[in-house]
Amino acid sequence: MTANSEAAVDAVLAQVDKDLDQARGRLFDLLHIPSISTQPEHEQDVRHAAEWFRDQLAGLGFKVAIEPTAGHPVVLGRYPGPAGTKAPRILFYGHYDVQPPDPLELWHSPPFEPQLVDGPHGPRIVARGAVDAKGQTMMFIEALRAWKAVGGGIPAPVTVLVEGEEEVGSPNLEPFLVANKDALAAEFALISDTNMWDIDTPGLTTRLRGMCNCEVTLKGPSRDLHSGLFGGSALNPINVLTRILGELQDDQGRIQVPGFYDAVRSVSKEQQAEWQALGFDETAFLRGIGLATPGGEHGVPALQRLWTRPTADINGIWGGYSGPGSKTIIPSEASAKVSFRLVPDQDAQAVFEGFQRFVADRLPPGMQVSFEAFGMAPGIEIATDTPWVEAARTALQQEYGRPAVMIGSGGTIPVVEQIKRTLNIDSLMMGFGLEDDQIHSPNEKFELRCFHKGTRSHARLLGKLAESG
Amino acid sequence: MTANSEAAVDAVLAQVDKDLDQARGRLFDLLHIPSISTQPEHEQDVRHAAEWFRDQLAGLGFKVAIEPTAGHPVVLGRYPGPAGTKAPRILFYGHYDVQPPDPLELWHSPPFEPQLVDGPHGPRIVARGAVDAKGQTMMFIEALRAWKAVGGGIPAPVTVLVEGEEEVGSPNLEPFLVANKDALAAEFALISDTNMWDIDTPGLTTRLRGMCNCEVTLKGPSRDLHSGLFGGSALNPINVLTRILGELQDDQGRIQVPGFYDAVRSVSKEQQAEWQALGFDETAFLRGIGLATPGGEHGVPALQRLWTRPTADINGIWGGYSGPGSKTIIPSEASAKVSFRLVPDQDAQAVFEGFQRFVADRLPPGMQVSFEAFGMAPGIEIATDTPWVEAARTALQQEYGRPAVMIGSGGTIPVVEQIKRTLNIDSLMMGFGLEDDQIHSPNEKFELRCFHKGTRSHARLLGKLAESG
Repeated sequence: MTANSEAAVDAVLAQVDKDLDQARGRLFDLLHIPSISTQPEHEQDVRHAAEWFRDQLAGLGFKVAIEPTAGHPVVLGRYPGPAGTKAPRILFYGHYDVQPPDPLELWHSPPFEPQLVDGPHGPRIVARGAVDAKGQTMMFIEALRAWKAVGGGIPAPVTVLVEGEEEVGSPNLEPFLVANKDALAAEFALISDTNMWDIDTPGLTTRLRGMCNCEVTLKGPSRDLHSGLFGGSALNPINVLTRILGELQDDQGRIQVPGFYDAVRSVSKEQQAEWQALGFDETAFLRGIGLATPGGEHGVPALQRLWTRPTADINGIWGGYSGPGSKTIIPSEASAKVSFRLVPDQDAQAVFEGFQRFVADRLPPGMQVSFEAFGMAPGIEIATDTPWVEAARTALQQEYGRPAVMIGSGGTIPVVEQIKRTLNIDSLMMGFGLEDDQIHSPNEKFELRCFHKGTRSHARLLGKLAESG
Repeated sequence: MTANSEAAVDAVLAQVDKDLDQARGRLFDLLHIPSISTQPEHEQDVRHAAEWFRDQLAGLGFKVAIEPTAGHPVVLGRYPGPAGTKAPRILFYGHYDVQPPDPLELWHSPPFEPQLVDGPHGPRIVARGAVDAKGQTMMFIEALRAWKAVGGGIPAPVTVLVEGEEEVGSPNLEPFLVANKDALAAEFALISDTNMWDIDTPGLTTRLRGMCNCEVTLKGPSRDLHSGLFGGSALNPINVLTRILGELQDDQGRIQVPGFYDAVRSVSKEQQAEWQALGFDETAFLRGIGLATPGGEHGVPALQRLWTRPTADINGIWGGYSGPGSKTIIPSEASAKVSFRLVPDQDAQAVFEGFQRFVADRLPPGMQVSFEAFGMAPGIEIATDTPWVEAARTALQQEYGRPAVMIGSGGTIPVVEQIKRTLNIDSLMMGFGLEDDQIHSPNEKFELRCFHKGTRSHARLLGKLAESG
């Protein structure tokens, strides 16, 4: 029985099915560990979770070590794959740390005592980390295990990197990637930390927005002034700031920063049609957050606005008096935090510079402005014409009986950009979460069906990749 | 010698000159009392200052009492005037309380140990309350004293009201005015709490701006949202608030609230010319507060903008995240405090309603708005064709050898509006302060020359009013 035979895959899938209860049990063991990376009192728990992953990988025949960083360690394991294999090397990325469970009183069961609870889609696993990312990470490990058990061995060369600081912004990951460039060399990265379209429709996430975060401060009078004695003569920095930022979008929702859209790609007719066919109900989406009408650019369909169009949101604003009652001053300064979500080919630094010009062009003489940038990341679009995307599409089609949707995310997943930049490889984002999984919130859950079919999908993907070699 | 003879006035002025050192000594006695109305530990001092004024008025032959209020008491004295006089009854308003002296370390001498210090205009009195308003109030008392001493008696009927809560916003004055309407009946009120144009040019303040203070809050999403996952679909309340408030003024500085200017009076050519002739240097005025160009309406001369045109200033704004670094949220709400300075005939309530419409007209569907009003006061323009204004102009012309300027103030003096509303009389605002007197600040001062010539001006005014009877 060879790795790329139909029979091998069928055996592996049967093994996944047979082993489901044990796999769930192993995930429960892991979920019992409160590996909260942001809380120093859980440092030993975080370490414990790293050791747990090391032991899993060692048991699968990986050469594995817990590698130190300036923060929590990285678990790094390598598996050679079958002798003489031509299958591409996979770099699987996961994380073993979790968010704090607060507010505890909103949990229906203790966050680190995982439960199997009945829901509309059958049993679901409820615990902190159930889906983000212990559950999603373990699907891949279980797929490897099934291949090892009944498929004639893990059918492709695999490197596994499981970090412990994802929930605190991965501050030490990039230096680790740079320092271990050779050990991490692979043909693509595989990440299971995203969602499906819905429980019956698989998805591959192929687009992420980037960002440009900054702060702007206008300084006017040298001190707060009496608005009676000076009003009508002294320029008011809050009035000026609202006037300038109020012009960020025109009445069609188009962002007015010079050159802002120059590099923005249009979306192919095929892609538009595919998303249109999903029947996304923006009205219901907005109703869920208490809104009746959408923002953003007029005339652009909802999913395109969320996934393929850049934004300009004011995340905070302050200046003058904000206490009870009134204080009739003209304040000396006013500030705002502004963030732009970016799409591929937009240059974050150029957007920051364009925004600075946008403000400066509207500034009255004698008023000072200063800017501070907090973070820049480009938007990402993953090439979909690669063998591994093709392999994943086929695997998902076979598992779900319908095509996988190429979806986008309006958010930013920094590790994808870091892997691209430091290791020069794309990421295949094949995730099995659902929108209602309550990640980072009380009663986080992972549908057992998603865990099961996700594991099967990973097992199929491994088979496809072995075939492609 | 009768009150209305030239000789009587000359004798009174000579007495003021002769008595200057004693008058300064009496003011120093008063300035030694730390009558800080806002600080409970000074309650006895405040009471002491009230008793001091009561004793002064009793010594001048007034029927006087310390009248209780819900807060600090009012000193109320009545003098009948000469038998059979036809002179108008004056209601003189002053206050015996002062601001706290903090920050103490910036004073060059202890705030309640008055000093005579040499300055560019000769000796000046330095102490908390030197000008605001113990010094300004005492000028009138000293003028009465000189008339009593050598002029054949106080030449007109006078009511004196000295309150002790001006520096905390006069919370109990209006009920007192209402309850004592009959005892306070007079033909006009005289207030010495304003400035001259400059040390050589007397002024009567005939215009005050009113105000409409309010707060506006926009509510959008039901909770703070992730700006990546929702940006481009969810309306952002800060973006919307800046867009709306940014339209408060057009590019000519004209306020866009519907009907805002309907009731605004134009200024007569004569008045414009008089102010033009003052040669107000707005560039220097702005330089003093760190600004290079004026705000307000384009094409309107500076003093007209400050004194006769309404404003719309945002006094505070807040919403979203204002801590260090970035937090990429779309916040659920944003707020601002907005105040309009109003001019005569503008209706504060109508302006508030117009502002509400202005915001509502620009609000996207499904976003909620709420308003709160904090304070309303109409703008005031004092009639200048009255016998007492005429008398004051003549008195000042004779004392200074040049015409008094009819000046405005961009601020609001609530007592003027309260007296107008409750007693139905205008206020004659004849003050002798200078712009650099440091009221409410360390090293408050009153030029001895202003105190001296102010006392003489009050003495002359009393003579003119007696003549007019």
